[in-house]
Formats: sequence, C-alpha cells, structure tokens
Amino acid sequence: MYVTKMVCSQCGRLHDHERIQRVCTRCGSTLLVQYDLESLKSILPQSRFQGGGNTLWRYDAVLPVEKKDFITLGEGYTPIFQLKQLHTDSLWLKEESLNPTGTFKARGMAVAISKARNLGITDVVVPSAGNAGAALSFYCARADMRAHVIMPEDTPPIIKRECTAAGAHVVLVKGTIAQAGALATEMGVEHAWFNMATLQEPYRLEGKKTMGYEIAESFHWDLPDVIIYPTGGGTGLIGIWKAFEELEILGWISEKKPRMIAVQSTGCAPIVKAFTEGRTTVTPWSDPHTMASGLNVPAPFAAPLILRVIDESGGAAVSVPDSAIHTAVTELACREGIYACPEGAATFAAYQNLRQEGTIDRDEKTLLINTGSGLMYPY
Amino acid sequence: MYVTKMVCSQCGRLHDHERIQRVCTRCGSTLLVQYDLESLKSILPQSRFQGGGNTLWRYDAVLPVEKKDFITLGEGYTPIFQLKQLHTDSLWLKEESLNPTGTFKARGMAVAISKARNLGITDVVVPSAGNAGAALSFYCARADMRAHVIMPEDTPPIIKRECTAAGAHVVLVKGTIAQAGALATEMGVEHAWFNMATLQEPYRLEGKKTMGYEIAESFHWDLPDVIIYPTGGGTGLIGIWKAFEELEILGWISEKKPRMIAVQSTGCAPIVKAFTEGRTTVTPWSDPHTMASGLNVPAPFAAPLILRVIDESGGAAVSVPDSAIHTAVTELACREGIYACPEGAATFAAYQNLRQEGTIDRDEKTLLINTGSGLMYPY
Repeated sequence: MYVTKMVCSQCGRLHDHERIQRVCTRCGSTLLVQYDLESLKSILPQSRFQGGGNTLWRYDAVLPVEKKDFITLGEGYTPIFQLKQLHTDSLWLKEESLNPTGTFKARGMAVAISKARNLGITDVVVPSAGNAGAALSFYCARADMRAHVIMPEDTPPIIKRECTAAGAHVVLVKGTIAQAGALATEMGVEHAWFNMATLQEPYRLEGKKTMGYEIAESFHWDLPDVIIYPTGGGTGLIGIWKAFEELEILGWISEKKPRMIAVQSTGCAPIVKAFTEGRTTVTPWSDPHTMASGLNVPAPFAAPLILRVIDESGGAAVSVPDSAIHTAVTELACREGIYACPEGAATFAAYQNLRQEGTIDRDEKTLLINTGSGLMYPY
Repeated sequence: MYVTKMVCSQCGRLHDHERIQRVCTRCGSTLLVQYDLESLKSILPQSRFQGGGNTLWRYDAVLPVEKKDFITLGEGYTPIFQLKQLHTDSLWLKEESLNPTGTFKARGMAVAISKARNLGITDVVVPSAGNAGAALSFYCARADMRAHVIMPEDTPPIIKRECTAAGAHVVLVKGTIAQAGALATEMGVEHAWFNMATLQEPYRLEGKKTMGYEIAESFHWDLPDVIIYPTGGGTGLIGIWKAFEELEILGWISEKKPRMIAVQSTGCAPIVKAFTEGRTTVTPWSDPHTMASGLNVPAPFAAPLILRVIDESGGAAVSVPDSAIHTAVTELACREGIYACPEGAATFAAYQNLRQEGTIDRDEKTLLINTGSGLMYPY
C-alpha cells in the first residue's frame, strides 16, 4: 500500500490514514487520499496495471486497501465502445451498467467497504437516491457487515427490493436525498453507525477514481478531448479527475487532459446555476424534481470540488430536461442497443446539444459515461 | 478465422459454414462448428488469449466471426469468486449477471447476431422464456436488425419491458417455451425470419462456449473437479464442454475434465428423468411449472447432446424444488452478496444436497454458474 496521508480538499490539513476518518476535523470538507506517487513512478511498470485481472483491483497499487482485505463482487474494468448513430467516429460510451448491482456505485462501495471492514467497522449508514443503497447492501452482505439505507420514498421499487433482498435495513423518507442525508446523520450519531454519505468519507472516491484509470488504459494512455458525466453528488467526476492527476504524476499521460462536462437535469441543476454565475459554491436547489433520481441532489456536499474540476479542466456544466432524457433513453436502446439509466442517457442528450451549439466539434473524441442500467427504472 | 466446417452432432453429416445453416439437412439435429485446431495449436501462443481485452472476443481465434463483424455490448470475461458461508475453500461461482442485459444469454446472441448480420440476415425470431429474448432485442438494436420475440405470457414483466424498450416485436403466448417454439417456427417460415431457437442454429453455442475458455483461463488451465450448471435448453452446458474438448486438442488443459452436473427444478426435470432412467433422449415433461423460468423447458431440443455431455464427463442430473431455490436466493443475497436469478440459485441448492449425500467431497473444487441477475425476478 502506497498511501501516505489524507489531505483536506479545502484547507489542506493533514489526517492520519490509519485511523477511521470522515471529513476534515478542522473545516468539515472532503478528505483526499494521497499516495507516494513519486516512488511508485520508479517501481511501477505499466504492465503492473495491465496484468491485474478483470476488476478494478487491477489498479491496487493506487488503492488504499491491501489484497488480503479486498471485498469483491467483480466490480470495474467495464468496456468502452463506439456509438454510431450520429455519424461520427469520435463518440464513445463507457458502460458502467456492467458492474455488480448494475451501476457505477459498486466501485465506491467495493473500496469503501473493504477499507471499513479492515478498520473494524460493523454498521454503515448511507443516504441514497437508490443505487448507492443497493450497492452498499450487497457489499455489506459480502463483508458480513450491516447496511442501513435511508432513501426517498419515491425511489424506484426495484431498487428498494434490491436492498431488502440483500438483508439491508431500509428507511424511507419524504423528500429527496437532502432529507435522507439529514436523517442518516442523525441516526448515524444515535446508533454509532459509520456514515458513508458520498464525499463525507475518503474511500468511495478512491473506488470511483478507477474509472479514470480504466479510461486512460482503454484509450491507450491518450485521453479523450471531452468527458461528459452525469453529476448528482459528483463523486465520479471528481474521482476521474483525481485519477488523471495521479496518472500525470506517474508520467503515463501527458498534461493535456479532457474537458470535464457535468450534466444535470433542468429540474435540479445547482451545479449548472453556480457554474453559469461564476460561483465556487452552490445554493440549494428549491423544488427539485427529475426522473433521473441520481441527479436529484439539490445541494451536493462537495460542490466546491465539482466546480473546481470543471474549472481546471476548461469544462462546463449543462442541463437537459427530462423530456430529452426520455428521448435519449429510447434512442440509445433502439439504435445503439444500450439500456441506459436516465442519468446516463442525459449525457447523450447533452452531447447532441453541445455539438449543435459548437461547444464540441465533430472530430473531438468524446466519452459519455452511462453510470447504470435502465433495468431498475419504470420507463 | 479458423472455421473448417460444420458437422451434425448426431449423424456426422458435414455442412458448408459459409452459407446460412440451421440444423442438419439430413437428420434435423444440432450442427457443431469445427475449427482447424491442429494448425491453431502450433501458431496460437497462450498470450494470444490473455491479451485480448475484456470481452469474450479475446477468444476470437476460436470464434466464427471476423473482427470487422463483431457486434459487441461488452459481453463475457466475467469474474469468478469464492463463496464462503459453507466453510470450504473449494466452492466458486462464476458471475454471469455481469453481462449486457444481465444474463449469460448475451454471449450466444453476441456471436450469433454478429454472424447473422455478416450473412445478410435482417429479421430474427426467437422463442424465449425471457432472457434470451431480451438479449436478442438489444443485440439486434446494436446490429440494425429486427428482433421478433415469442415468449410465455407469464414471463416476468421487467423482461418483457426490456424487449420492447429495445424496439423488439414481442408476441406473448399461453404455455411455456414449447408453445413459443412452435409459434416461432410457424412465424419464421411465414415471414422468412431467421429462427434463432437455441441449438437450432450453430452460433449461439459458439458464444456460450466462451464460458468454458474463461473458466479454464481463470483457473490457470487447471480445471475444477465439478461444474454445476442450471439446465433448461442446455446450450451453456454443451458449450462449456465443447470448449474443454477444444482446449484439450490445443494442448492447454489435461484430459482430466470436470464432472458436469445439470440442475433442474423438480417442477420441470426432463433431463433428470432421462438420466435417472439411463436413457439418451427425453420424453416431454407434462405440466411443467417452476419460478425459474429459464428451467421451464419441458423438452429441450438438444436433449441427446446434454445427456451425452453428462455421461462423457461422469456427471449427473439432479433437481431441486422451488422452495429450495427460494432459500438459496436469500442465502446468496444476504450472506454472499450475490443477487442470483432462480436458475443460478438452483446450483447452490443442488451443491448443498450433493455435498450432504457425498456425491461431491468437501475438498473437490466446485464451480457454480450463476447465469443471470435476480433483478428481473419478482422475489
């Protein structure tokens, strides 16, 4: 393991990585795991990654868990393939629905639960719009830990059923993930359950960052020009960027990195609003509503980090209405054979807009991320 | 491409692989694709398989499709991991739910649709208990072909919805896949749709056989002692065995191959009945009923082939009641973190019986195949 320390993403305070940590003990912001990349650079041959098997653990050198502690259900190492209907050779999609429990949430939970068990944690609580709760439930079952999932009552029934099938304790709340988050905090404190709300503990991000390593490896270390990412809590977007920064230090990619474009629904677009107004933080979105439940996050905890990534990458934040998401779901299913979740389909809708308005050129290599399967949604 | 010919599995008649073929033109039995394995043996280094990317196309040297014709949604190369609750280090599970559309059916359809498109076929019909229809629908969408799916009216609603989401033409029938099969034959002839009923065309089997190659590669070319496989139509069981026979000729595995154990539901167990009675063919099961819709196949078309594989491998055919399947679903979900389809869970129930009665020893390396996700089933 090459972890050296944890550093606060806002104030820079250092934290001990060998103890249980959640957020910065001084300012309450997200902690980032740091590695001894300079040492790794000299001892890690590229083949080390390439021979590592067909899960995200192939990148174990840059993960915070030792091999003996891996909790795995086969997560990660998902394929990327070309889309064809828009008559360009430059459009690609990473298919995250081929993860355990059908979504990219498995990545974060695999790493975070592996680490939590190693640290002796037995009970974990998470507020979730759905898919994170389902992933937590199955990884906890695998790890002989107890999962407590707090989710909005209008979460798709199939996702609720996933959680209970795995033996999780499910609590439904009125409202969005904001209300679920408040209750998770309260119950976590009351019952001494570890709160695994995203970016409020350091390890889900490490799991999500493996998407960035896989993207780099899949494109033979020559990154796309643009990545379009559906942004609710923002962990994937931040994680991919963290991977690119690490890969640059490792010397495996050049300094030219993709423009990161965050996509939200017009029914809940706090990041788009802040980006448009040139601000570095968000005001909570009032009256949030969208069929893309993963995007129904009125006030992402790590909004400053999301906005920083967009800014550093020269990217943007855009929104699409649910009607366009619905059309994109149908187009992807009937013409590309991809059964996307609404969040993933939103990236396809956004791409079409961005091409039309000239923000993305026809020849710019663009990667969409389909974060999960459409199977769980009542289309 | 190293295909040399197609041979009838019963009468041995040879068929031209460059033309559209379904079953033997003389006796109506399943055709098997043959390769020039002797030539391949001298020119195919093991690294050729290992460097082939993260889909089943890594084994393209032993597949009947050229690279330019691959239709892919990221199928195959699924993980294998250990189960832990039964206190043995010898029990493994291959997780086929990590395929596009959530089941092993994707393998057969990827290869068969790739080949069908190459041969100029535009319309395909399939009788299906559900998952094969869903897979066909999405691969046809990807290939710009038209899918016609004939399925029992009591197919789980989520699976029906998958098919229509991908733009397939769905026809529901009363009864089981037997009635669907009859109608598919009739409609196929009437409308000149290519009938892709399993083992009634040669290429779905080729896709399924990649499971065998992956099993061999995952176990470092030292095969398990026992493989337990849920057997409806039997394509997977036959395919895995075909792979092992090819690998033996290639010289990559020894002649010691696993005992192949077919699992069915007590509500529909024609193979178990024939095996127990020492017969080489089945009589149709009357009044078939099981929650494991993929096992609700009262008269598998290729029953003689299934029984031959069981016999050659020194295996067996066993059945478990739906109540045991249900218990196994819960045990796998809550204690292993695996959300199995009922067919996959049946292998776990069968394993426990076979261990208790001493057919499988504690130390015998045993592999279960979970053929798909539990997500589509109304548990």
